[in-house]
This record gives sequence, structure tokens and C-alpha cells, in this order.
Amino acid sequence: MLSIAVDAMGGDFGPRPIIEGTLQALRERSFKAILVGDVSAIKPLIPDAFLNRVSFVESSDVLDMHEAATNALKRKETSIYKAVDLVKEKQADAVVSMGHSGATMSLATLRIGRLKGVLRPAIATIMPTAVFGKVSLVLDVGANVDCKAEHLAQFAIMGEAYAKDILKIAQPKVGLLSNGEEKSKGNEITKEAYEMLTKMSSFVGNVEGNNIFDGSVDVIVCDGFVGNILLKTSEGVADSITKIIKHNIRKSPLAIAGAVLMRKVFTVLKKQVDYAEYGGAPLIGINGCAIIGHGKSNAKAVKNAIFQAITFSSSNINADIENKLTIFES
Amino acid sequence: MLSIAVDAMGGDFGPRPIIEGTLQALRERSFKAILVGDVSAIKPLIPDAFLNRVSFVESSDVLDMHEAATNALKRKETSIYKAVDLVKEKQADAVVSMGHSGATMSLATLRIGRLKGVLRPAIATIMPTAVFGKVSLVLDVGANVDCKAEHLAQFAIMGEAYAKDILKIAQPKVGLLSNGEEKSKGNEITKEAYEMLTKMSSFVGNVEGNNIFDGSVDVIVCDGFVGNILLKTSEGVADSITKIIKHNIRKSPLAIAGAVLMRKVFTVLKKQVDYAEYGGAPLIGINGCAIIGHGKSNAKAVKNAIFQAITFSSSNINADIENKLTIFES
Repeated sequence: MLSIAVDAMGGDFGPRPIIEGTLQALRERSFKAILVGDVSAIKPLIPDAFLNRVSFVESSDVLDMHEAATNALKRKETSIYKAVDLVKEKQADAVVSMGHSGATMSLATLRIGRLKGVLRPAIATIMPTAVFGKVSLVLDVGANVDCKAEHLAQFAIMGEAYAKDILKIAQPKVGLLSNGEEKSKGNEITKEAYEMLTKMSSFVGNVEGNNIFDGSVDVIVCDGFVGNILLKTSEGVADSITKIIKHNIRKSPLAIAGAVLMRKVFTVLKKQVDYAEYGGAPLIGINGCAIIGHGKSNAKAVKNAIFQAITFSSSNINADIENKLTIFES
Repeated sequence: MLSIAVDAMGGDFGPRPIIEGTLQALRERSFKAILVGDVSAIKPLIPDAFLNRVSFVESSDVLDMHEAATNALKRKETSIYKAVDLVKEKQADAVVSMGHSGATMSLATLRIGRLKGVLRPAIATIMPTAVFGKVSLVLDVGANVDCKAEHLAQFAIMGEAYAKDILKIAQPKVGLLSNGEEKSKGNEITKEAYEMLTKMSSFVGNVEGNNIFDGSVDVIVCDGFVGNILLKTSEGVADSITKIIKHNIRKSPLAIAGAVLMRKVFTVLKKQVDYAEYGGAPLIGINGCAIIGHGKSNAKAVKNAIFQAITFSSSNINADIENKLTIFES
């Protein structure tokens, strides 16, 4: 049975949604949870029926969201440090944290270590598309701000493996994010990466920002600077549209009635674009499994992040990445 | 009276929307239009009443949207080449084209020339925000794929001048697009640009993708690679949301009724995010004025692009840019 270490103290809302999500996951799947945090506060939240599959690790410190990620390595009593180290020490198969994402990334990379051949692990995020039931995977979205071509090429391999092994897409299409579809488009680094990626049979060439959402491609590769910006831009557009609609509905009783009749449509839309449905962001390229959740995760998001960790840890993804990275060696 | 050269042959839909938009503009404002293209085809479209303010320049060639921009300089008979040269030869104050944007950019930069001190002109685009009546300006969105810090710093000056002189924002806030608000965030080039930008009193620091749409900042500076990606990403998100809503409305008669009642809300939303309301994308930093319209421009978009050209050419923006660029010299 897999053991999943859960940082019970990370996240913007404290332990409650994390514990609730863990319990939901325990109800639906067979695994063991190791909760890391203030045991006197979290243990009373676990019903007796679950205690045979839940263990606790005491930690006296929490890394605040606003602290520099570089502090994480020195603060050995934090819940995130201890949760990551459970994977390092093979006491857990995966770690899930809704806390400081930069810290999780640094700790997981440095304490657990990288896969053979991986230059830099990447954070991937699952994006909704307009095609029902289809998602796309964008990486990197924050771990690596300044990238070289070989980093981007490795992200493509890691994304392809995630798409195959975790998202169960038999023949994923991998695209390189650029400012135009033509091969001649791109900046110096993406043009160099393009040449390297032609070695991958799944590579479909350059793709553009809109292709993230139109279902035409499964994996989109970019550096962490661009990835972070496109993530925030997407959130900004969706938020603005929602605000404009809500603001204008309020102005008219007819529109309010219309919105009531359309409630189901908005529910479907919300579900389709809700990150909580997709869990967290996997850190790919480490010698283990770390799922980085959104700080604002509710119980459902925590549950889905744990499911991701279970699927990841039961899969062959890390061996597949190590094998496939060799195509760039010759 | 200002003279505006209009490339009558550029754009995806041929001369008709361009001529229609020019006529709409002539009805509302006092200026002269110089239409460049196949005169035998376009002259019959102009009612006699306008002929005292419309002149024609024959051109026998059109640059196709799919050709390389580098061809533009050799093809001296194209409508875009001739329209740009009217500005170079001081026969027109501005050029407006819905055609090949890369070609317009290259021709305008090389034939008309750059302003004193400008290293690279930038293409700016006006973005809608969730705050009614408020827009933001993003630059560069495509002209410059690989940028140095000094290019980004100059874009900030050009954007600030456009916000003040054209958008009439008395004290524009200028932000540097990055992967976080903290000064420590950014890639190597944006961190260097950040230091240079502290010389500008309008500089508010790093901003994130969502700030483009929340009305918190007026000018957002990035390189053309990132700018293009965020533009396409924004379009992709808005398109996907529209598609998901439409798809789900069709499934339910109740939702269809609701959508009818909400029609006015959707109309307001559409108007608020419709690029046609904002005209085209100004190329800033050349010794003149060039407005680059969307290939799919309808008559309204053409009219608004011409209005932009008129406001730009009547303003002091180019002198302001030359003056303010000197702050980076010391």
C-alpha cells in the first residue's frame, strides 16, 4: 500500500481543508496517509475509523507563504521540510503540499534529488480546454525562470511521459510555445530547442498561446517565466469575464432571471475550468513524487492532489523519463 | 488637415471593409485619406461627396499574409510599401494597414526611420480590463522577440508617452511584466530592466499577468515573444469560455431562454472585449505614425484605427519620447 506524506500545515486556510481532503481521499482509495504538522491540533480531526491508515509526524514550525524559498533548507522543523524528507528516507512514496510552492520545489529537488540525466525538474500544470474531457499540460510554470534549450527539450520528454503515464493519453502531441507556428518563429532559445525536439516523434512543432485551450495539443513546453505569466494571464482573463458578466447581470432584473435559468451552464463552465478538479501541479524530474497544490486549495483539490500522487507513484513515469532523455545524448 | 495613408488592399477580407471604415471615419472627422491600391477597383466604391477629401495612389502588387516579412523591402509595388513611403516622403502624416503586420513593422521602421535615441520600435496593443472604461497598454507584442534590458526600458518610456498623449491618462502607472511582484522576481533581463526603470517616477515595479486585466496598471512592458504569447493566450481563454457556454446553452431549452434574457449582458461583454472598439496596434518609436490593424478588421475597427492615427499624429508623442529617453543616458 502506498504511503503519501501530506504537509498538514501548508496552505492559506490552515489544516482543516487539508485534513478534510485527506479523509475524502482515504474514503475513496486504498493508501496510507502520513500527516506532518502540529499533531495535537490535527489528530483530533481524524475519526477513529481512519486511524489504522493514518500516521502522524510532529513538526513545530511552518514556513510562511511570504518567506524566501531559500530559507526552506535551513528550517528543518517545518512541516514541508519534514514531509519532503519522508520521501527522501523512503518512508513515503510521495509528498503533497499546499504550502510554499517555491520551498516545496527547492526541498524536493535538493533533498530527494533529480532523476538520472535530468538537469532541472519542472512544475507542470493541467489546463482546461474548450473540448469536453480534454486537458492540456503546460510546463514549466515557475521552477525555472532562465532556461537553456536543453532544459526546454527535457521538459518536453517529462511532459510527454506525464501525458502518457498519468493522463493516459496514448499518443500525446507535444508543442513548443512560440510566437507563431512557423519553424522560423521563436526567440534564440526556442529556435535551438526546436532543433533538438525534432528527435521526438511526438513533437508537433511550434504552438501558440491559444493552442493551450483548443485541444489541438496535449503538452505545451515553455520556460518558467513565460509559464507563470501565461498562467496568471489566463486567470486574469477568466476573472475579468466573470466580473463583467456579474456586474452587468446585477443591473437588470431580466438578466438576473436569465442567469438563474442559465445556472446549470455556469456550473458546468465553473467545473470545467476549476483547478480543484485537476488537483495540484506535479514537480516532474525528481527521484520520487511531489505534488504542489494551490495555496487556496479546498478539500476537493487536496483529495485530487493525493489521487495524482497515487497515480504518479504507481506508474512507471520516472523510469520512462530516464530512458527517453537519452535521445538527446547522441 | 492631416493626411492618412490607408493600405486599401491589406487585410483578410479585401478592400471593402477598409473602404467602408475609411468612409465612416471621413463622415465623423476632418482629415484627408490617401487610398493605396488597385485604383480601378477602389475608386468606384467612393461616393462623389467624399472625392474632395480622398486621393488615390496606384499599386499593382499586394503582399500576401503568408509571405516572409523580409520580402516586403524588395516588393516596391505593394500597397503596403507605397503607403509607408507616403509617410517617408511627408505626403502623409500616418499610415494605417490591416495587412501583413511584420511587413508593416519592418517597412515603417526601415523606410520612415526611428526616433532619435530609439533602439527598437515596439508594437503596442490596447487590452480591455474588468473596470468599465479603463484599458491597459501592453508592449511589445511582437516586433522584438529577443530583447535586452535597455530595449524593455525604452518600451516603458514609449508606453508611458502613449498612455499620456493618446489615451489621456494624466499619471499612468507603468509595470514590468514578471513572474511575481517582488523585486527579486524575474529573469536575468527583466531584473536588469527593473533597475533601469527605477529612474522613471511612473514605474510601479513588477506586475503579473492578471494585472493586465484588473485595471491596477496602465502600461505593461514585456518583450515581443512574451507579448505575443500572452495576447494569444488571452484570446484562447476568452474563446474557450465562449465555446463552453454556447455548447452548454444548446443542450437545454431553459438555458436558451436564459441566454435570451441575458442577451444585453453578453452584448456589453462583447463590446468591452472587442478589439474593433480600440482600433489597431500602434508601432511606437518611428519618426512618424503607423497603425497596424488586425487582418480580420471590420469597418468599425478600420475607422477606429484611423482615429488612432489622427490622435497620434496630432499629439506631441514623438517629441515626448525623444525627450524622455535621455533619462537612461546618465
